[in-house]
Amino acid sequence: MTKILIVGGVAGGASAAARARRLSESAQIIMFERGNFVSFANCGLPYHIGGDIKDRSKLLLQTPDSFLARFNVDVRVMNEVTGIDRQNKTVTVKNLLDGSEYNENYDFLLLSPGAAPVIPPIPGIDNPLTHSLRNIPDMDRIIDTIRMNKPEHATVIGGGFIGLEMMEAFHQLGIKTTLIEMANQVMTPVDREMAGFVHAEIREKGIDLRLGVALEAVEFMPNVSVASQDAGEPVAHQHLEGELKLSLNNGEQLTTDLLIMAVGVRPETTLAAEAGLKVGELGGIWTNAQMQTSDPSIFAVGDAVETQNFVTGQPSLVPLAGPANRQGRMAADNMLGRSETYQGTQGTAICKVFDLAVASTGTNEKQLQREGIGYEKVFVHAASHAGYYPGAEIVSFKMLFDPQSGKIFGAQAVGRDGIDKRIDVMAVAQRAGMTVEQLQHLELTYAPPYGSAKDVINQAAFVASNIIKGDATPIHFDEIDHLTDDQILLDVRNPGELENIGYLEGAVNIPVDQLRQRINELPKDKEIVVYCAVGLRGNVAYRQLVNNGFKARNLIGGYRTYQFANA
Amino acid sequence: MTKILIVGGVAGGASAAARARRLSESAQIIMFERGNFVSFANCGLPYHIGGDIKDRSKLLLQTPDSFLARFNVDVRVMNEVTGIDRQNKTVTVKNLLDGSEYNENYDFLLLSPGAAPVIPPIPGIDNPLTHSLRNIPDMDRIIDTIRMNKPEHATVIGGGFIGLEMMEAFHQLGIKTTLIEMANQVMTPVDREMAGFVHAEIREKGIDLRLGVALEAVEFMPNVSVASQDAGEPVAHQHLEGELKLSLNNGEQLTTDLLIMAVGVRPETTLAAEAGLKVGELGGIWTNAQMQTSDPSIFAVGDAVETQNFVTGQPSLVPLAGPANRQGRMAADNMLGRSETYQGTQGTAICKVFDLAVASTGTNEKQLQREGIGYEKVFVHAASHAGYYPGAEIVSFKMLFDPQSGKIFGAQAVGRDGIDKRIDVMAVAQRAGMTVEQLQHLELTYAPPYGSAKDVINQAAFVASNIIKGDATPIHFDEIDHLTDDQILLDVRNPGELENIGYLEGAVNIPVDQLRQRINELPKDKEIVVYCAVGLRGNVAYRQLVNNGFKARNLIGGYRTYQFANA
Repeated sequence: MTKILIVGGVAGGASAAARARRLSESAQIIMFERGNFVSFANCGLPYHIGGDIKDRSKLLLQTPDSFLARFNVDVRVMNEVTGIDRQNKTVTVKNLLDGSEYNENYDFLLLSPGAAPVIPPIPGIDNPLTHSLRNIPDMDRIIDTIRMNKPEHATVIGGGFIGLEMMEAFHQLGIKTTLIEMANQVMTPVDREMAGFVHAEIREKGIDLRLGVALEAVEFMPNVSVASQDAGEPVAHQHLEGELKLSLNNGEQLTTDLLIMAVGVRPETTLAAEAGLKVGELGGIWTNAQMQTSDPSIFAVGDAVETQNFVTGQPSLVPLAGPANRQGRMAADNMLGRSETYQGTQGTAICKVFDLAVASTGTNEKQLQREGIGYEKVFVHAASHAGYYPGAEIVSFKMLFDPQSGKIFGAQAVGRDGIDKRIDVMAVAQRAGMTVEQLQHLELTYAPPYGSAKDVINQAAFVASNIIKGDATPIHFDEIDHLTDDQILLDVRNPGELENIGYLEGAVNIPVDQLRQRINELPKDKEIVVYCAVGLRGNVAYRQLVNNGFKARNLIGGYRTYQFANA
Repeated sequence: MTKILIVGGVAGGASAAARARRLSESAQIIMFERGNFVSFANCGLPYHIGGDIKDRSKLLLQTPDSFLARFNVDVRVMNEVTGIDRQNKTVTVKNLLDGSEYNENYDFLLLSPGAAPVIPPIPGIDNPLTHSLRNIPDMDRIIDTIRMNKPEHATVIGGGFIGLEMMEAFHQLGIKTTLIEMANQVMTPVDREMAGFVHAEIREKGIDLRLGVALEAVEFMPNVSVASQDAGEPVAHQHLEGELKLSLNNGEQLTTDLLIMAVGVRPETTLAAEAGLKVGELGGIWTNAQMQTSDPSIFAVGDAVETQNFVTGQPSLVPLAGPANRQGRMAADNMLGRSETYQGTQGTAICKVFDLAVASTGTNEKQLQREGIGYEKVFVHAASHAGYYPGAEIVSFKMLFDPQSGKIFGAQAVGRDGIDKRIDVMAVAQRAGMTVEQLQHLELTYAPPYGSAKDVINQAAFVASNIIKGDATPIHFDEIDHLTDDQILLDVRNPGELENIGYLEGAVNIPVDQLRQRINELPKDKEIVVYCAVGLRGNVAYRQLVNNGFKARNLIGGYRTYQFANA
């Protein structure tokens, strides 16, 4: 009889427990959770705060009782594993309800402790109106604070997934919101110019978005005391009416009624490190591809571990639910004698930001630059489905690839419709090892309500292949502000578009459909930098120019990419 | 200077013309179209009739003038190419406006004539109230008939894409509709049991759906004559008030005000065949992978050609817009000295049927049986996104694969949300040559509004891999009605579900969460056929049974698959 102990009862741990039982009726399985809840819908918390998910109980996917009934798993909530004796293969467990301690032996131990919110050591940060959001009690505290204090203004620090989702939740509740992000963009999985679309959306909804600014100090200015022992908080954290004065590193000050710290998470490795298990250079538990730690009897999964980046092969920390679930399943397989290997993490991710979705897979440009990997990029802005059918929205799409081999490095997309689909397609293509040339041949679903005969992805593949074959000489948005005297800008849109949307200073305007007649207005001794709205007409003009002996380049992604790059 | 003639100015022809010009400024390009319109939105026609696309001009994507201005292509509408002299590399063209004829020589000729609606030789079918729908004049005639005759009842013959879309259009216009299909299902790209979901939706909307019935005769019973020469119809086809009496092959009769024939299309091969070009066994123009016909100076693309089925390698006729567009682009490349190869057709397709989408890629079960290819299948019914987030809908998903190699044969999906996405993912995975085991590792976008940590596709891959590894012994919906005395049915749902949804006659009911306690109620000498709602709890119970030494099988896709299989 194999005895398996599992530390942590959410995504990875719960998946492992269920899979282990399906594989073996005789295994003894005990799952320890220091909190009060197992298998809760972590990712749903902000949506319950914002009111999209009305019923709190929907977030509680399993209970200790349901786990016992279905999977015969002994679930021990409020039981914290405090130590591992690897020699004797036992753990020390502290019952948090009565403070007692006991030991439990194991054949295999699975660590799925997750990650904890990072709270930077900012003066005054420890106050009753500042919260982070990771679990059900965190959520309950935030809801209690909102219910009791009726805040008029909230501030969110951090523009990642949780930060953006909390910003939207507050906005839905009618609370004026400030979002502060230290970097020059939100959603760091995408590159700066793609985040520009998100910034525009956030500002349009009336959010006070401040980029490139950090919180330096917090001052709690209490008003009336409103005790909230119901929420199970320590006295220091009881809800108090009052406000916070925030000092930012640009000298600005800000008064707010509620502060959410969402600057990131850090792997929970204390238990693993104290047991002498190898911890990786990024601070996550090291595992091999079988999800086995440096001790072969101990496995680890989820937000606490480092996995291999699918593109670079480098270690990475990717605290996402999908990988955690699959790793848990795999660890159970391997503990019970199978041999399954985890095949790297692409970091495929998506976030809803008001009416937009922003998503990515693989590596972004910042990472490629950091790793010193040569790359090329294309931008396409195309309709989510046939433009003549109602409801089509622009998909703004970026693809990064190796200009030599055509290998896909990554993809990013932003828009109001069909974003998840395009990034899913790219995630599959990348995992399968397809090249950008092969993407030309993709045969995707098409009917007017769902797609286009030439999908966004096909189009991006055409552009990328044109570049690889030398049929297109690209110029990118970030080069436009550094043109030389040997280059001239040619805007091939219609005059009305220049007027309504804007244009690049100094551009000559010849609409593409007049170019053949007016081509002699252009100089042959300069490089002509062509652009249009999104790059399509620009390419038609570019081809005409080079086929007529001109030197030319086409602005990939057109004016739209340039325009939002700094939004 | 290369001179390229193109026959047909819609998807394939128009794509080829544009691409050819981008590649060569000097090529002479003439595009002949016997109709009045080039590059129109074929796929949008039913949606304009139904009113979703209000503005008719949105369907006209390009005009001869716009083609000339942008691409310097000489577009000749109402000019029909009537003959090819391959020896002298010339075509004969008839100007349909004045009846004159002329010749035009070519270096390369591209045939993109499309396909024409099949009108079976049914007595009385040639009458003024019977229409097919392929182009703008067809659409205009149908709209005119509706406007003038104000039909109260319409009948559609054929349950393919056009038939289903016209059914929906009539329904939107408040016209009672009968849909008649000779086969026992609509949407033949999917298998019968998946079409069941569509049948249920169609009937729920009040459509009179008749399956397995054919139209045998039509009798036109004129009422008042309402001339409609404006619509450019020959006198015989002028709109007349009156009704049609339809006789069906089951002896039933039906009176209707308007009849749409949508039983399929046939490649337009007359020109090619008369020129002695090779025509394939399915009746489409034969081409090699370069889209070259048996005459190296003549290329052919689109609905008129046979392509290789991606899975079986057999010739196939796939009249879809995506392949036509890509083939046109490729043919232009090859005419101008490149070497691009078309890489087979998966037949990826999708259709909106009221609130449902139904989609597929690759081969279906019927085709695999016909080809004698061994396969296994799985069914999964899972939420389109996290169940706890509002708006989640069930994705009903079928995957066909090789149980030896894990190769993906095809996939089908039906539901109200996320159908296009799942079939796109499968289309990419199949094209990339992934196995069903590899699909387990797919890392798809997940946030509660968009997906699940374990996506439908991951789940289907888990089930398929369990079968391949022998961790699951499947039984399928179509075997349930043929159980032997050595098998017993075990329903592991909760009693309320049996009551509300229905159950299989003769099943023993032990809810999965009670199975461990009550397992001794089951016999060890019989095979236990386990089922639940969708197969998930069934698998938990199945594993418990086999791990306890019982013989068992799990109904893949559960009661839901069985229930809709005959709908």
